[in-house]
Amino acid sequence: KKRYNITLLPGDGIGPEVISIAKNVLQQAGSLEGVEFSFREMPVGGAALDLVGVPLPEDTISAAKDSDAVLLGAIGGYKWDKNEKHLKPETGLLQLRAALKVFANLRPATVLPQLVDASTLKKEVAEGVDLMVVRELTGGIYFGEPRGIKTNENGEEVGFNTEVYAAHEIDRIARVAFETARKRRGKLCSVDKANVLDASILWRRRVTALAAEYPDVELSHMYVDNAAMQLVRDPKQFDTIVTNNIFGDILSDEASMITGSIGMLPSASLSDSGPGLFEPIHGSAPDIAGQDKANPLATILSAAMLLKYGLGEEKAAKRIEDVVLGALNKGFRTGDIYSNGTKLVGCKEMGEEVLKSV
Amino acid sequence: KKRYNITLLPGDGIGPEVISIAKNVLQQAGSLEGVEFSFREMPVGGAALDLVGVPLPEDTISAAKDSDAVLLGAIGGYKWDKNEKHLKPETGLLQLRAALKVFANLRPATVLPQLVDASTLKKEVAEGVDLMVVRELTGGIYFGEPRGIKTNENGEEVGFNTEVYAAHEIDRIARVAFETARKRRGKLCSVDKANVLDASILWRRRVTALAAEYPDVELSHMYVDNAAMQLVRDPKQFDTIVTNNIFGDILSDEASMITGSIGMLPSASLSDSGPGLFEPIHGSAPDIAGQDKANPLATILSAAMLLKYGLGEEKAAKRIEDVVLGALNKGFRTGDIYSNGTKLVGCKEMGEEVLKSV
Ligand SMILES: CC(C)[C@H](C(=O)O)[C@@H](O)C(=O)O
Ligand SMILES: CC(C)[C@H](C(=O)O)[C@@H](O)C(=O)O
Repeated sequence: KKRYNITLLPGDGIGPEVISIAKNVLQQAGSLEGVEFSFREMPVGGAALDLVGVPLPEDTISAAKDSDAVLLGAIGGYKWDKNEKHLKPETGLLQLRAALKVFANLRPATVLPQLVDASTLKKEVAEGVDLMVVRELTGGIYFGEPRGIKTNENGEEVGFNTEVYAAHEIDRIARVAFETARKRRGKLCSVDKANVLDASILWRRRVTALAAEYPDVELSHMYVDNAAMQLVRDPKQFDTIVTNNIFGDILSDEASMITGSIGMLPSASLSDSGPGLFEPIHGSAPDIAGQDKANPLATILSAAMLLKYGLGEEKAAKRIEDVVLGALNKGFRTGDIYSNGTKLVGCKEMGEEVLKSV
Repeated sequence: KKRYNITLLPGDGIGPEVISIAKNVLQQAGSLEGVEFSFREMPVGGAALDLVGVPLPEDTISAAKDSDAVLLGAIGGYKWDKNEKHLKPETGLLQLRAALKVFANLRPATVLPQLVDASTLKKEVAEGVDLMVVRELTGGIYFGEPRGIKTNENGEEVGFNTEVYAAHEIDRIARVAFETARKRRGKLCSVDKANVLDASILWRRRVTALAAEYPDVELSHMYVDNAAMQLVRDPKQFDTIVTNNIFGDILSDEASMITGSIGMLPSASLSDSGPGLFEPIHGSAPDIAGQDKANPLATILSAAMLLKYGLGEEKAAKRIEDVVLGALNKGFRTGDIYSNGTKLVGCKEMGEEVLKSV
């Protein structure tokens, strides 16, 4: 029997609620496919700050590194918003990405037929959208040095960060993107700002050079401002998008909102060889935490990505994806995706519905 | 009689067509309000590259600096896309912004009742949108040093840029934004990435400090990824947005596409004391250049912004705004905003319609 060690990081806000459900679903799907899990729960984000005073404790790092995959709920909340930078929950997440070297962040944005009305876009624009943003996650302006706030010769404060990409960083994320596009509809759009930024000029040059190795993938380039427009104008034109850390942050959130159901969207962050990090796109939603209102489906689908991309357990992953669609087909909806004529349920009831059908 | 010197920069693609119309409209509106213009046309962008080999000739810079306001058509085109960076049309535009020190870029995004169907957003989401993006235009990662592509100690290429803001740069754009919000609905949303970037931490700190001087303006802060989402989810929540150069580039384009009619949107770029730069949001549209298909209204409305923000000639500006609405009310539409039951016209006919009613 196959056995995997999974690190669970419930985090803050609605994180613990959705993680406890996803854990059960994972266990159930695994057991039906002859796969066993042992889970270890560790603190991160605000929860870790409250417990031990740092947003990413050493023990959490080593547990995560020693496991086969990491499932994260959500981090952050008003309570820690005024903390200094190194004591912010978000800093824990950035440190975790760096520690696990998960440079490739896959963020699907799909408009399910059952939920097309949830989008603020017109039906004919939204329906059929099925795109994947491949975001570089451990480089660029998020981590570039030098950075800081200093006082200049005039006694004036100056804040600065460095956007920086080395060729190998571009190449490895581009490869993930080409492979991803190849498994999808074979179209890759690389997004940059090569008409202004030197880092983007190198980005475009490297991505273009690699295209020769993927003749079956159709590569195009788009400026980031245009991409932000095109996602609104005609999101169906996109299959796979590859871009840097900060542009990926912005565009993947925009794309997820276009689906109208960010409570549904999972993500996977992958490294070259170590454990991957899987988490819902949505935040910690402190305003509804502990009220049994959260949509657990994004985390459940993140568990499916964990099985598929993290462990190669495609069958168990497929089971989960199918029951999620099944629950929607039966009309079950949490508040965020509720519409007239469907059945409003809480976080737990949605979880039980999925669990019993896996 | 008041006399102003206006530098016209037709530029590339549809630029010359729309500028020649806007020039006539400007002249007519002025003459009715006792204002005279002398115009000087100068080359910029691809047109300048073809003529003298640089995208912003010295003569163009000095003509622009010596004038009371600058009206630009559009720059860029496939022809020059492979040029090296310093020989790209876009570089000419960046150099012009720097030369004129136009640090404050005002980009309104308004959904006109006549054009609400042009938006890809549902009618109830799009109607009534009326927001203004105040974008910092001469700082940040667009101009920050050091920048470039170098070979590192491993013989590997590395591309890098510097995001940098000094306190006074933040303060002056924030002041413009507070003043703008004050003249509008009194709400200002400052967009940054203060949970990750040091430059954003300083940005947020300075903007927050200035708020004390504008007690009548309600200030909020939003992360850029969330702003990209909120523009899709509920654009009506925004009145005035202030943000840095690169975030402003992305968000203002997203906002303009949300209106569904970027052929309608003007912009103003202002300095502390010198001449302002006024231009439509849209690009040079080389595919329809010279075919009498372009929508001249964005440039005509840019001429109105020139009168209002550049010269303080509010009455003449109002004339132009009114006739543009009048032409739409009469049903005149260029191809980009055409819908069933309206009257399809070319660039020239739309221009004549506006001109005769000013
Ligand atoms: C919380 C924040 C640091 C993070 C990011 O910017 O990467 C988040 O927005 C995300 O996209 O996962
Ligand atoms: C052409 C380009 C350099 C420019 C910019 O990025 O500022 C354009 O996108 C704009 O927004 O005016």
